[in-house]
Amino acid sequence: MFEDKLHEECGVFGIYSIDGEEVSRDIYFGLTALQHRGQEAAGMAVSDTKGTMGNLVMKKDMGLVSEVFHKDDLERLHGNIGVGHVRYSTTGGSTPENAQPMAMKYIKGSLALVHNGNIINAEELKSEQMHRGMPHYTTSDSEVLAYEIISNRVKAATIEEAIAMSADRLKGGYAVIVMSPRKLVGIRDPYGIKPLVLGKKGNTYILSSESSALTAIGAEFVRDIEPGEIISITKDGIKSDKELCGRKRAHCIFEYIYFARNDSVMDGISIHDARIKAGRALAKKARVDADIVVGVPDSGLVAAEGYALESGIPFALAFHKNSYIGRSFIKPTDEERRTAVHMKLSVLDSVVKGKNIVIIDDSIVRGTTMRQLIEMLRNAGAKSVHVRISSPPFLYPCYYGTDVPTASQLIASEHSKEDVCRNVGADSLEYLAVDDFAAMVNDLPICTACFTNEYPVK
Amino acid sequence: MFEDKLHEECGVFGIYSIDGEEVSRDIYFGLTALQHRGQEAAGMAVSDTKGTMGNLVMKKDMGLVSEVFHKDDLERLHGNIGVGHVRYSTTGGSTPENAQPMAMKYIKGSLALVHNGNIINAEELKSEQMHRGMPHYTTSDSEVLAYEIISNRVKAATIEEAIAMSADRLKGGYAVIVMSPRKLVGIRDPYGIKPLVLGKKGNTYILSSESSALTAIGAEFVRDIEPGEIISITKDGIKSDKELCGRKRAHCIFEYIYFARNDSVMDGISIHDARIKAGRALAKKARVDADIVVGVPDSGLVAAEGYALESGIPFALAFHKNSYIGRSFIKPTDEERRTAVHMKLSVLDSVVKGKNIVIIDDSIVRGTTMRQLIEMLRNAGAKSVHVRISSPPFLYPCYYGTDVPTASQLIASEHSKEDVCRNVGADSLEYLAVDDFAAMVNDLPICTACFTNEYPVK
Amino acid sequence: MFEDKLHEECGVFGIYSIDGEEVSRDIYFGLTALQHRGQEAAGMAVSDTKGTMGNLVMKKDMGLVSEVFHKDDLERLHGNIGVGHVRYSTTGGSTPENAQPMAMKYIKGSLALVHNGNIINAEELKSEQMHRGMPHYTTSDSEVLAYEIISNRVKAATIEEAIAMSADRLKGGYAVIVMSPRKLVGIRDPYGIKPLVLGKKGNTYILSSESSALTAIGAEFVRDIEPGEIISITKDGIKSDKELCGRKRAHCIFEYIYFARNDSVMDGISIHDARIKAGRALAKKARVDADIVVGVPDSGLVAAEGYALESGIPFALAFHKNSYIGRSFIKPTDEERRTAVHMKLSVLDSVVKGKNIVIIDDSIVRGTTMRQLIEMLRNAGAKSVHVRISSPPFLYPCYYGTDVPTASQLIASEHSKEDVCRNVGADSLEYLAVDDFAAMVNDLPICTACFTNEYPVK
Amino acid sequence: MFEDKLHEECGVFGIYSIDGEEVSRDIYFGLTALQHRGQEAAGMAVSDTKGTMGNLVMKKDMGLVSEVFHKDDLERLHGNIGVGHVRYSTTGGSTPENAQPMAMKYIKGSLALVHNGNIINAEELKSEQMHRGMPHYTTSDSEVLAYEIISNRVKAATIEEAIAMSADRLKGGYAVIVMSPRKLVGIRDPYGIKPLVLGKKGNTYILSSESSALTAIGAEFVRDIEPGEIISITKDGIKSDKELCGRKRAHCIFEYIYFARNDSVMDGISIHDARIKAGRALAKKARVDADIVVGVPDSGLVAAEGYALESGIPFALAFHKNSYIGRSFIKPTDEERRTAVHMKLSVLDSVVKGKNIVIIDDSIVRGTTMRQLIEMLRNAGAKSVHVRISSPPFLYPCYYGTDVPTASQLIASEHSKEDVCRNVGADSLEYLAVDDFAAMVNDLPICTACFTNEYPVK
Repeated sequence: MFEDKLHEECGVFGIYSIDGEEVSRDIYFGLTALQHRGQEAAGMAVSDTKGTMGNLVMKKDMGLVSEVFHKDDLERLHGNIGVGHVRYSTTGGSTPENAQPMAMKYIKGSLALVHNGNIINAEELKSEQMHRGMPHYTTSDSEVLAYEIISNRVKAATIEEAIAMSADRLKGGYAVIVMSPRKLVGIRDPYGIKPLVLGKKGNTYILSSESSALTAIGAEFVRDIEPGEIISITKDGIKSDKELCGRKRAHCIFEYIYFARNDSVMDGISIHDARIKAGRALAKKARVDADIVVGVPDSGLVAAEGYALESGIPFALAFHKNSYIGRSFIKPTDEERRTAVHMKLSVLDSVVKGKNIVIIDDSIVRGTTMRQLIEMLRNAGAKSVHVRISSPPFLYPCYYGTDVPTASQLIASEHSKEDVCRNVGADSLEYLAVDDFAAMVNDLPICTACFTNEYPVK
Repeated sequence: MFEDKLHEECGVFGIYSIDGEEVSRDIYFGLTALQHRGQEAAGMAVSDTKGTMGNLVMKKDMGLVSEVFHKDDLERLHGNIGVGHVRYSTTGGSTPENAQPMAMKYIKGSLALVHNGNIINAEELKSEQMHRGMPHYTTSDSEVLAYEIISNRVKAATIEEAIAMSADRLKGGYAVIVMSPRKLVGIRDPYGIKPLVLGKKGNTYILSSESSALTAIGAEFVRDIEPGEIISITKDGIKSDKELCGRKRAHCIFEYIYFARNDSVMDGISIHDARIKAGRALAKKARVDADIVVGVPDSGLVAAEGYALESGIPFALAFHKNSYIGRSFIKPTDEERRTAVHMKLSVLDSVVKGKNIVIIDDSIVRGTTMRQLIEMLRNAGAKSVHVRISSPPFLYPCYYGTDVPTASQLIASEHSKEDVCRNVGADSLEYLAVDDFAAMVNDLPICTACFTNEYPVK
Repeated sequence: MFEDKLHEECGVFGIYSIDGEEVSRDIYFGLTALQHRGQEAAGMAVSDTKGTMGNLVMKKDMGLVSEVFHKDDLERLHGNIGVGHVRYSTTGGSTPENAQPMAMKYIKGSLALVHNGNIINAEELKSEQMHRGMPHYTTSDSEVLAYEIISNRVKAATIEEAIAMSADRLKGGYAVIVMSPRKLVGIRDPYGIKPLVLGKKGNTYILSSESSALTAIGAEFVRDIEPGEIISITKDGIKSDKELCGRKRAHCIFEYIYFARNDSVMDGISIHDARIKAGRALAKKARVDADIVVGVPDSGLVAAEGYALESGIPFALAFHKNSYIGRSFIKPTDEERRTAVHMKLSVLDSVVKGKNIVIIDDSIVRGTTMRQLIEMLRNAGAKSVHVRISSPPFLYPCYYGTDVPTASQLIASEHSKEDVCRNVGADSLEYLAVDDFAAMVNDLPICTACFTNEYPVK
Repeated sequence: MFEDKLHEECGVFGIYSIDGEEVSRDIYFGLTALQHRGQEAAGMAVSDTKGTMGNLVMKKDMGLVSEVFHKDDLERLHGNIGVGHVRYSTTGGSTPENAQPMAMKYIKGSLALVHNGNIINAEELKSEQMHRGMPHYTTSDSEVLAYEIISNRVKAATIEEAIAMSADRLKGGYAVIVMSPRKLVGIRDPYGIKPLVLGKKGNTYILSSESSALTAIGAEFVRDIEPGEIISITKDGIKSDKELCGRKRAHCIFEYIYFARNDSVMDGISIHDARIKAGRALAKKARVDADIVVGVPDSGLVAAEGYALESGIPFALAFHKNSYIGRSFIKPTDEERRTAVHMKLSVLDSVVKGKNIVIIDDSIVRGTTMRQLIEMLRNAGAKSVHVRISSPPFLYPCYYGTDVPTASQLIASEHSKEDVCRNVGADSLEYLAVDDFAAMVNDLPICTACFTNEYPVK
């Protein structure tokens, strides 16, 4: 119940106030707006571009942004340039050491790095580094990335050049922000698998996984970082290296389906619009006669709204969600699990009683949640329950940073649609087709490997 | 933005497993389901009815249920009878000492007490107790209540008799659960201002502020405790003393408008239904031509749904709510406040752009939130914004346990409806009328003192 | 090894700055100087005599004074009158609730109380209180004391009168300091079993268990509180009620032998002098030919010095004591115990090798420590080891606040002197006689019940 | 008062149980026995030589050994090989990151290192490492050491060879213990400035700064590690590389005067004997007619005993030391400082009244402590106070790991002996001469740079 969802790895945030204003509070608010991307750990590193080299200050720990940072931390985290991170751990264990930023001192001063995504060839790079005599303290691929940059920096003229040399060797989907003593540099993988946007507030520049974090701090959205672009922000403004751009793009479709916040705009597409369109597409493709359309909170609600708009069937809120069940909530035992569903979501009986219901969710992973919800709906008197999923059946692993259960745990990879329908106890079950994505995201080139097994990178 | 809401004082929970099963986990899950009633402090006391007298164990502290209790606490909190509490502090300072349960040893063993509501004559009772030489450790009226019961218990034959003697003297709105070494006793004030329900799971009885906590632990709802009823649960089952019942009832209307959870049923009325009806009543009374109806999350959503159903105008989700902004979130400074609205709620631009909008909320207290939301809607391109409030203007203080700002802070008590409309920047503003409540709660007798200045108790 | 000692219950400290100076730091330093009297818990309560009634602030917790109080605590503990306490728990469990001060509000304002000693008739008084309907929160007899005073205060004209009424009913050995909103009152039991002294620094008065705490804060010693005296310090100075004085005195001899600090002066006797004299008396009575006299740190060192002075045998430091083994040190397992002796005390081999040794300690409780020390001395090459104990064999329990093992654990109560000598592996063993005390403490009347079974109170 | 002492940097401890027994408890007890060498931070790293490579577990933090490690830590710290450290920080800031062990993974598995002393050319080595692209996380020279070994290990056939290559480049005084997955290696600087001993318990080998830690865990002392020796302990036993041995030795004299524990034996010399001899030498050289000889606790006591033995003047304990004033004790303010002396040490008035006194301490650093002690003695009635110091005037900085105030703070480097005598308020003042050391340590070659400015290393 609590874990039956795909997980994104992280959210990244970087900021540089050229006028020298303190940035720790903006990082705090920005990370809070990215908290949905990772709730296991949070961290930030800041430094003062006008101060002596290596004046970097950092705090990172397990927990939510509001648990990790206290008021005195924000005061202590003095500086006008900084990076921040929220983490849901996939690669590397779930320990404070593996939290980000990854920060260190080296020959050219200090370096702090935050990173969303997955470097496919991290082990290979790590092995090379170790053979050059470099020790490792963590099991995270962010350390590998940082060491790669440092190693190149010894030979390169500038940090940007070192980052470009490193980026050239990286395989995978990633968005990285590097803070050097005087510069903030962002990189996005050449396929654009992971998102990264640029914002601006006065003379302060911001890089962020999502535009929602810009809104949160009162900054305006400038543009998406292009796939393959290396963007460098210095006291003289913005500079771009687009050497790596121009390849085939493959944006992660799950950002649009589930990961990103409804109020974000990503690569030109409003997330909310995409989800409404997904719901409409489902209604066109798999209409059913019903009394109400309901969504599984929070992620299924917008697609349900789209389905309702297209089908004309009224949209209803059918579930109450308990928002006090966080990281530290004591998990119910197995025998308590049946009733425990009611802890997180409870059915509003008077809404569903005697109704034929269309229920929309963004995906089916293991199927356990959907089975329990349908049982709850039936117990509350629903006459029929038709499941509509705003993505295709999830069949293949993701190598670019999304945490996917093994195939044997993916209900769709082991069972036919009919079996899944019966398994979750639905009256009917339909998925969105891969073809529907084109309309949903206005022909944006997307990565559909998890549905089709066709990976953009080998 | 963060505080512009009415506040309920508390949620209470009591449980007695006659078969001797451990109850601490059920209290934990039950309190989590009542968490919306108070997020400042939580506590529970349990004891073993088969053990020696006075084997009571307690834990209470500031924080959410999931912050106060850890796994080893639940193991240490051994017993088959117990009471629990979540607190939003009004009377008494915000300190761990004032958290509940209030537990002590006295001549007849131990006593633990939890309490929702306000004892109007607490100071008077306290003064009497002090004159009898009793020391006080807290500033909470729960201690006064406990001392009253103890004082009577010395003279009375049973704890129920002592409680009845005490209840006879209490003025105010309250729901109290008392745990003695062998009995669980619940009391509800004779007007029924504060709610209390009875549930059952096998041979285990539960008392709770709301039925939602019964669902959460897999128990069934049995009935509401009657106003004035003293219900006693012992190993021999349930017994009721209805000596104090039969007076004029006056249920708190704000439970139906805002405090209670959507999935609770209270004094025969489904909370969700009541809110749908409130929205419908608003639509009948104050219809406006518009493109969409939106609700202020979370409390305004259901009334918005009702308004949409009645008016035929489509219901839309227009706001994204950040659910990671809890008790420990660092408050934005005054200069950050403008942008800080975006932290908690952000507008989905594509939903509202170019639209004429009806926005529903459950109440206007200071007006600050509504003003900011309307500004956000207009910035996002809304053509017009019509405010509809699912309760009448809030004008008078509450003496029964709801935390109300002073009159000078209540926007409606100082300004005409037209002024308020202009102040919040709306195109039009309408409230629900006191008369509409009858339909909303099926003629249930309610307390409307905060709108009408007519108090049920003097 | 770690527990083979008698234990004193507590140290008390009270202070009143008539000129209105802050007292929390002096309480902190004073309690640190009394820390040897109890290391389990510490606490202080202060209030402002010029402020409104009931402005008392308190902190108490398990741990050393330096662990319980941090810098910000001392700032928060605002006031010019206060009481403090260090605790080694005997009566009442080892919990934070049982820590002192015991503080509460009652009809005449607030009251805080600290207490060293044991009220023999506490259970009887508690039962009376409970029958009057008073609840109890702790298992400590300090609560009983406080309730007794409060109960009397309702009838009495002044707090002093209430305390006198209470003292008249108390049986046992005790030193109590009571802080009311405007007064500091000290009481010492009529036999003078527990110590209490008066000090002065400018216009600030101090009450303390030992004069060492006066020195620590730069105050001068004024006089001992007389047995049975009730001393009251108000803004008008000092007043004494000696109604209860004049009975037979019976000072606890263990204060002189072991409990009190070497640099304290108690009832006219320098502790250091008394211990030197005890050593001299041992030398006169039980001289032995030896090469060196050594003492068991820390308590046996001074008596050893006295033995050396009298006998002419050179005094030597033969043990190194590890002063980093505190409350939180992880206890060695049983198999580690043999070597664990070396953790706390280690022998200086070159001092003892080939020597005939007289070893002095203040008492033998279970005998385990002495057996291990002698074995260590022999392993280091000692030729012979003669044990001399600066007190008589310890045979009977103490009812006045000293924590004594049960008779079956007292080696001397079950074995003859010869058996004990053999048991600990000594070449000879001699004790001080009860008769020798007269010379040691200049004929001060003392309580010798633990040696003679003759108790001053029935 | 609290800081007027020289400080040693650290204590190191390493252990390897060839039979596979758990070692964390022995490290805990061993570090406790070395706690006097550093009280700011403690840590240990252990691993299992039979397990997979890189199974190292570590804990380190600020605080005493008993504060850093709890029972569950010792259980979690699983393994049969390990290193531990207690730290008083000099080089590198006082932060948890700078605590030791320094542990990391690298091409050949894991490495953990503990280190006592100072690497004079650390900055130079660090700069080389940085130029090779190695990042640094701390400001401690232990990280430099670890990186040097890792860098060499890439080229070397064995870890011993890598350590030998590194040792060849190190300048300074040091004792280092390195734990690799299968080996424990110790190194002592070629001058023998820092101590390191070998012990054995069954089939378990121990390396430790002092023999006292061997006694503490029931191990026997085998021998001192030779200056310049690299000792390697593997499952096949002990192997030594003495390539670097044979240079001029220069043992730190302050180990004998003050740093080491009285019960340790170091490079063949009993510490206690050395201190007795220092006292005797002082008595021969600077005898004075007096009534008693007293020592400043704890370090001056043994020299005072020696002075007494040689002079025939009786040795007396004149001070009570409060052993509860630890790391977290709140420092007295400047105005409290006068009385604060009495917190840590108080004079036993009856001992010193009317006496002519010789007072012995091991050194005078700033002179502040001695001045206050003499004032205390005079206030207590001492007729005269003659100061004898068991070391020569301290004049020059130490580059080998002893924390020395700057010359301007050293009273002896700025004032003549007569001035110092007057400044501290003594009747006479004499020091030990550098020549006296020969007798004190049996002609052991020692480093006297801090007295003579003649450094063994350039």
